[in-house]
Amino acid sequence: MNSSEFRRRGKEMVEYVADYLEDIEKRQVYPSVQPGYLRPLMPSCAPQEPDTYEDIIKDVEKLIMPGAASPACTELEMVMMDWLGKMLQLPEAFLMEKGGEGGGVIQGSASESTLISLLAARTKAVRRLQAASPEMAEAAIHDKLVAYCSDQAHSSVERASLIGGVRLKAVPSDDKFAMTASALQEALGKDKAAGLIPFFVVVTLGTTSCCSFDRLSEVGPLCNKEDLWLHIDAAYAGSAFICPEFRHLLNGVEFADSFNFNPHKWLLVNFDCSAMWVKSRADLTGAFKLDPVYLKHRHQDSGLITDYRHWQLPLGRRFRSLKLWFVFRMYGVTGLQAYIRKHVGLARELESAVRQDPRFEICAEVVLGLVCFRLKGSNKLNEALLEKINTAKKIHLVPCRLRDQFLLRFAICSRVVESSHVHLAWEHIRGLATDLLRAEAEPKAAAAEIKN
Amino acid sequence: MNSSEFRRRGKEMVEYVADYLEDIEKRQVYPSVQPGYLRPLMPSCAPQEPDTYEDIIKDVEKLIMPGAASPACTELEMVMMDWLGKMLQLPEAFLMEKGGEGGGVIQGSASESTLISLLAARTKAVRRLQAASPEMAEAAIHDKLVAYCSDQAHSSVERASLIGGVRLKAVPSDDKFAMTASALQEALGKDKAAGLIPFFVVVTLGTTSCCSFDRLSEVGPLCNKEDLWLHIDAAYAGSAFICPEFRHLLNGVEFADSFNFNPHKWLLVNFDCSAMWVKSRADLTGAFKLDPVYLKHRHQDSGLITDYRHWQLPLGRRFRSLKLWFVFRMYGVTGLQAYIRKHVGLARELESAVRQDPRFEICAEVVLGLVCFRLKGSNKLNEALLEKINTAKKIHLVPCRLRDQFLLRFAICSRVVESSHVHLAWEHIRGLATDLLRAEAEPKAAAAEIKN
Repeated sequence: MNSSEFRRRGKEMVEYVADYLEDIEKRQVYPSVQPGYLRPLMPSCAPQEPDTYEDIIKDVEKLIMPGAASPACTELEMVMMDWLGKMLQLPEAFLMEKGGEGGGVIQGSASESTLISLLAARTKAVRRLQAASPEMAEAAIHDKLVAYCSDQAHSSVERASLIGGVRLKAVPSDDKFAMTASALQEALGKDKAAGLIPFFVVVTLGTTSCCSFDRLSEVGPLCNKEDLWLHIDAAYAGSAFICPEFRHLLNGVEFADSFNFNPHKWLLVNFDCSAMWVKSRADLTGAFKLDPVYLKHRHQDSGLITDYRHWQLPLGRRFRSLKLWFVFRMYGVTGLQAYIRKHVGLARELESAVRQDPRFEICAEVVLGLVCFRLKGSNKLNEALLEKINTAKKIHLVPCRLRDQFLLRFAICSRVVESSHVHLAWEHIRGLATDLLRAEAEPKAAAAEIKN
Repeated sequence: MNSSEFRRRGKEMVEYVADYLEDIEKRQVYPSVQPGYLRPLMPSCAPQEPDTYEDIIKDVEKLIMPGAASPACTELEMVMMDWLGKMLQLPEAFLMEKGGEGGGVIQGSASESTLISLLAARTKAVRRLQAASPEMAEAAIHDKLVAYCSDQAHSSVERASLIGGVRLKAVPSDDKFAMTASALQEALGKDKAAGLIPFFVVVTLGTTSCCSFDRLSEVGPLCNKEDLWLHIDAAYAGSAFICPEFRHLLNGVEFADSFNFNPHKWLLVNFDCSAMWVKSRADLTGAFKLDPVYLKHRHQDSGLITDYRHWQLPLGRRFRSLKLWFVFRMYGVTGLQAYIRKHVGLARELESAVRQDPRFEICAEVVLGLVCFRLKGSNKLNEALLEKINTAKKIHLVPCRLRDQFLLRFAICSRVVESSHVHLAWEHIRGLATDLLRAEAEPKAAAAEIKN
């Protein structure tokens, strides 16, 4: 949507809201629709090509307003999570349309998704162990439980383990900053020998530091074999999996119990909107739902009635699926794919520009929209370069430390970024690097002159 | 703001956003302001009388835009939480303006606030116990910890205890559905005698079922004496404490470690906005912050730099304090007080109408905007009445069960509610009750006729 259409549509929306509030007394306080009304009225997939804004608004009036906040809020979310799941080619076990055990839900953040998965896994592990050994106390089990992630995983995994009161082991990543099955296997073996109980593994697809990918397709089968809950955190990278050429990065998702990524990061959906899927909703709600009868009837929560408050930490919910619905229809799947491809293309452009300047080096494989680079030389030199860049305030970079190397991260992520921006930014960085290297060289030259 | 002003201002805002996006390249990527820039530029209290919308928008341009998302988002939240704290006459220990240990933060829901308080209390208890007995394992301590709330507390307290992996005891409430110090004392005594370790108490001000109030001013001193973390959940009722005549309901807050209410419930702020204050930010962030150095320097986090991501479960944050700022200034404190008083007045009107109909009874003291009532007679009769009301779809009521009584709850909570709506609703309920009682009587009359 361009700026002039945004101005027009935005004002129409203001009128729509004002009309709604003025006429609110004429509306029924409680909807007449029946649970499950919405899905049969909607397509089963997101449109490939964009719809018009007019069509979407007509559907809001026709499909959403009669269903008011409830059940429309829940039902649109169920359908949108299926649409998105299909865009990612998730296995059917994660979808809701056939009324199975799995399904998707919108959370606020990847941190919450990781925490919820860990809590669900903890509850499941405790129940399994207590079923086998009824004499074991819950606290004694918690004390032995161990969660695993790679040493490159996001700090929110450690936070989740602190909150859940369980140990976390960081598995050493390989030379591509990826967790391998053999490294995980080694950690599991040691801990089991020490009498601990492994229960939960987080695989990261697209790490924060350098966008590396844990080896899901080898770690996954190991988790299944060892009966460990496998959670996939693809917070940033997940959006790219809607493109067939990047979907292979998600191979192995079929082994996972839960999968999460943030459409608010790279799929044109405003913050917050974190998409999470589970294979067994009973495992998830079993950790939070207070009605113990529920646990005796695993299938009672499948089918038409989904009570999302048992899927999350807060009780209240916002109508976030509207954002997904509008974005999917305004862009179409092809539009969203083009958006991802454009960013990846710009990252490759930058990578090639960096490689052309012999003063610089690329520090990690450029897979998606993140380019990690540094000046050949000391960490101190690169820290000085970052300081110069961020003080100039033309662009803003966030650094990271990979093993012992301090490096700079260039993330392509703006809705309006163009090739010209990337090249301007790179020329700006090169100029600052030239200044820096000259200043570094000068005192030495001066010292040499004095000596002569 | 009336409908025609809303239409005008809404459209101006659409233009503002479109202009911003069109001209975004001209803006600096990183703000030039220094941390702590905002507070000196703002009044220290919310205005008593309404400001104009024009003045607010001018201040957005002057005060917020130069501070961009960061640090403006954090700093406006700090100032707004102080404004709101002062409106409630919170003790100075909960405010930030003097750079003390306490402070306020916006959470998403009361459930999250309760959970965060419980986790902070758990961490504090574990550290205290391990300092005294270094041989005690964390899991062994968790196993002995007990949290307390009244038997009328919201289910989110039980949920928090499940997530935190600690026991929860429901203290029997008195005949006014309130937790007393003596009932709590009795529960504490029993548990301590059994070798358990009390650590956390939730006092509810304004229960969900009937808006009853735990006896904070007697429970508070007991919690302090016993070294228990005291959390106050005033999710609904808290908004009323901005009126001097209701402030006494919060007496005893000075004994609390954390206090929470939801401005999104009854203070004209859109969902979600849950306001939480703590007396010691180090206790709160100590439970989540991963940098262990922090714990060695308690004062490092006070003063100008507040990193709210350590105060909450998710990492990402929305700019929710803007909602508070706009509402406080559009209404002024007097406007917000008038809004609360109007709702309480309407609840009293309804209470008196109910009392005038001898078929009905009031089931709990009407303190704020909730009226609990029922038909004199069986639970079955009242269940049938509720069914009739909700099937008619003119109004919508949510029931509850108080001890063994099924009763109906009439909540005054709409922004646009007037006396006429309340009376229309009550006449509607009376009419349905008449139909119901007639139908109940008929079969008996018919049976009597047959007998005769």
